[in-house]
Amino acid sequence: MAERIRIAIAGHGNLGRGVEAAVARNADMELAGIYSRRPPEQLKPLQAATPVFGMEALPGHTDRIHVLILCGGSKEDLPVQGPQLAALFNTVDSFDTHARIPEYFAAVDAPARENSRTALISAGWDPGMFSINRVMSEALLPDGATYTFWGDGLSQGHSDAVRRVDGVADAVQYTRPVEEAVERVRRAERPVLSTREKHTRECFVVLEEGADAERVRDAIVTMPHYFDAYDTTVHFISAEELARDHRAMGHGGFVIRSGNTSAGNAQVVEYALKLRSNPEFTASVLVAYARAVHRLHAMGQYGAKTVFDVPPGLLSSRSAEQLRAEEL
Amino acid sequence: MAERIRIAIAGHGNLGRGVEAAVARNADMELAGIYSRRPPEQLKPLQAATPVFGMEALPGHTDRIHVLILCGGSKEDLPVQGPQLAALFNTVDSFDTHARIPEYFAAVDAPARENSRTALISAGWDPGMFSINRVMSEALLPDGATYTFWGDGLSQGHSDAVRRVDGVADAVQYTRPVEEAVERVRRAERPVLSTREKHTRECFVVLEEGADAERVRDAIVTMPHYFDAYDTTVHFISAEELARDHRAMGHGGFVIRSGNTSAGNAQVVEYALKLRSNPEFTASVLVAYARAVHRLHAMGQYGAKTVFDVPPGLLSSRSAEQLRAEEL
Ligand SMILES: NC(=O)c1ccc[n+]([C@@H]2O[C@H](COP(=O)([O-])OP(=O)(O)OC[C@H]3O[C@@H](n4cnc5c(N)ncnc54)[C@H](OP(=O)(O)O)[C@@H]3O)[C@@H](O)[C@H]2O)c1
Ligand SMILES: NC(=O)c1ccc[n+]([C@@H]2O[C@H](COP(=O)([O-])OP(=O)(O)OC[C@H]3O[C@@H](n4cnc5c(N)ncnc54)[C@H](OP(=O)(O)O)[C@@H]3O)[C@@H](O)[C@H]2O)c1
Repeated sequence: MAERIRIAIAGHGNLGRGVEAAVARNADMELAGIYSRRPPEQLKPLQAATPVFGMEALPGHTDRIHVLILCGGSKEDLPVQGPQLAALFNTVDSFDTHARIPEYFAAVDAPARENSRTALISAGWDPGMFSINRVMSEALLPDGATYTFWGDGLSQGHSDAVRRVDGVADAVQYTRPVEEAVERVRRAERPVLSTREKHTRECFVVLEEGADAERVRDAIVTMPHYFDAYDTTVHFISAEELARDHRAMGHGGFVIRSGNTSAGNAQVVEYALKLRSNPEFTASVLVAYARAVHRLHAMGQYGAKTVFDVPPGLLSSRSAEQLRAEEL
Repeated sequence: MAERIRIAIAGHGNLGRGVEAAVARNADMELAGIYSRRPPEQLKPLQAATPVFGMEALPGHTDRIHVLILCGGSKEDLPVQGPQLAALFNTVDSFDTHARIPEYFAAVDAPARENSRTALISAGWDPGMFSINRVMSEALLPDGATYTFWGDGLSQGHSDAVRRVDGVADAVQYTRPVEEAVERVRRAERPVLSTREKHTRECFVVLEEGADAERVRDAIVTMPHYFDAYDTTVHFISAEELARDHRAMGHGGFVIRSGNTSAGNAQVVEYALKLRSNPEFTASVLVAYARAVHRLHAMGQYGAKTVFDVPPGLLSSRSAEQLRAEEL
């Protein structure tokens, strides 16, 4: 058997733990180590035998690692870590601040090229698998319309926004697609849908002692950008209920494109994800792309890449011959 | 604007007509001509201005054509035309005899390489988009199971088989997924499903005069390979009913994979197609891959390729920068 691909993890949060679980499910890979900004003794890897290091050990470990998976947050961590680490390692990350992707791509591309490294940015499910399906289905049906629906699922950014409201002790926010809108899209009606018609938002809020529920509700549902363009429902619950009923990290959604190949013939392409654990699925995507990055690097393809640049076959542990014989 | 991609069509059946319609919907392409084994005057292109030639004109037309889309049948035409034409042109085809794909790949690869041509084989929806989704979802969820369901749709091969039965004047056969099986797969049960449990078959048969309906029914439902492993329903109808109700070419299906990223967390990935016209959708896929082939050829990637070898971004008429900014 060929040498196994040595994966390492930079940043040990939800995603980092998901990568540990995913590497264990891929026989052609092994976990070389976990790297964190926190003191190693504070971290508990899934497998006790997995070595844990401080981030400062990374520059001395370039020989131990084939692909480093960056599991830091998109807001604060990756803009700093991505460019730095792409100078030293082949990397994969899940950078998901959509509006800043071109800027982040450029910041990672330069050091990766200078050091002959391959750095795949913005993998995961959205950005990631959903992006691929938006691009492919549009290419297949140029005369059509694409719709992305998210949910049912917990949105981290919106939960954070609710938690910042005066009088809120804790909160979670779920994004839900409007079933009727999804059905119209599936029927190839190509509806024009407002923000309000596509998703609803539902908040479960624990109030601070003495907070005024109606003022909190009002502050949430009128919050610009986050809630004002949506129909939002706010439920007030106890801290115990929040802890008991709202710790799951399920998510998912659909990318649906309908288009006409001739005047009378509408065609519908749908890609759907039903995720019990958003971070574990995202991590599994990162790990599959780590395999592709390892191969792209061996082929001399350096610099920043995205999922749009990766041939599907490179994600598989099977050879091109096997895939042709078994899956085509 | 850059020079448009000049597409030509070899073989003018359902797929060939679909390619005509698809090229008209892609602003960066133009149709250079239609080539057929039949005399040009017997063919009616969608646009009267499209030039029609005999196949024998092809060797003299290598300068006029960027990508030749082979629309011949997989059984008799492509095994001969594919290798011959891949020596002269960049090609795309929809070869769908799954068991013979490795052999066909090799037969096309050699002449394409010798002549520095790029030949993409077996594009379409299955093989094609379904193959990509089988491979990618398995790579994302290695601990899981993949299911392909076809239908509701008319199966050409099975319709032909029914037409060969003694006493049958004409017939069509529909393949239908078993809804309960699909639901079990979507619930991530990973069921073990027999052939019979996944699909049913439904035949609409016009009898020859004096034929014995019960003997015909029996011959169909017990036919080895085609029907004996399925629950098959046979309806007898008139030639008028067949012509009126069974000329649509709709099809579709699902590729569903469910898998666990950890013991408690099942994830489900589903890709679904609802096609009003199977040949028009297949043709649209071929045309998008023609764009990719044109680019692969410009990059010096010669020889036979499959959909597994093509980065998704190459299918789009937009640039890599645009795709990163707009779709990631
Ligand atoms: N593309 C997609 O589809 C997709 C989907 C989901 C998420 N994402 C992205 O993935 C990013 C990471 O998500 P996540 O859920 O893994 O975030 P997270 O759990 O907050 O972890 C982010 C970082 O915070 C640090 N951290 C984690 N737990 C900590 C603790 N208890 N105390 C102090 N620091 C801790 C870790 O770095 P150290 O170990 O260095 O301290 C970790 O790398 C998100 O920002 C999001 O942008 C993308
Ligand atoms: N990968 C996929 O998902 C997928 C999906 C659907 C189909 N397919 C493949 O596509 C292949 C072609 O399908 P199709 O529906 O286009 O087949 P078709 O209509 O039977 O055409 C096949 C060839 O037959 C000739 N022909 C067509 N009409 C004719 C007529 N009236 N008289 C005499 N000859 C005629 C044409 O060649 P000339 O012009 O040279 O005579 C044409 O190229 C199938 O064999 C199948 O393998 C693949």
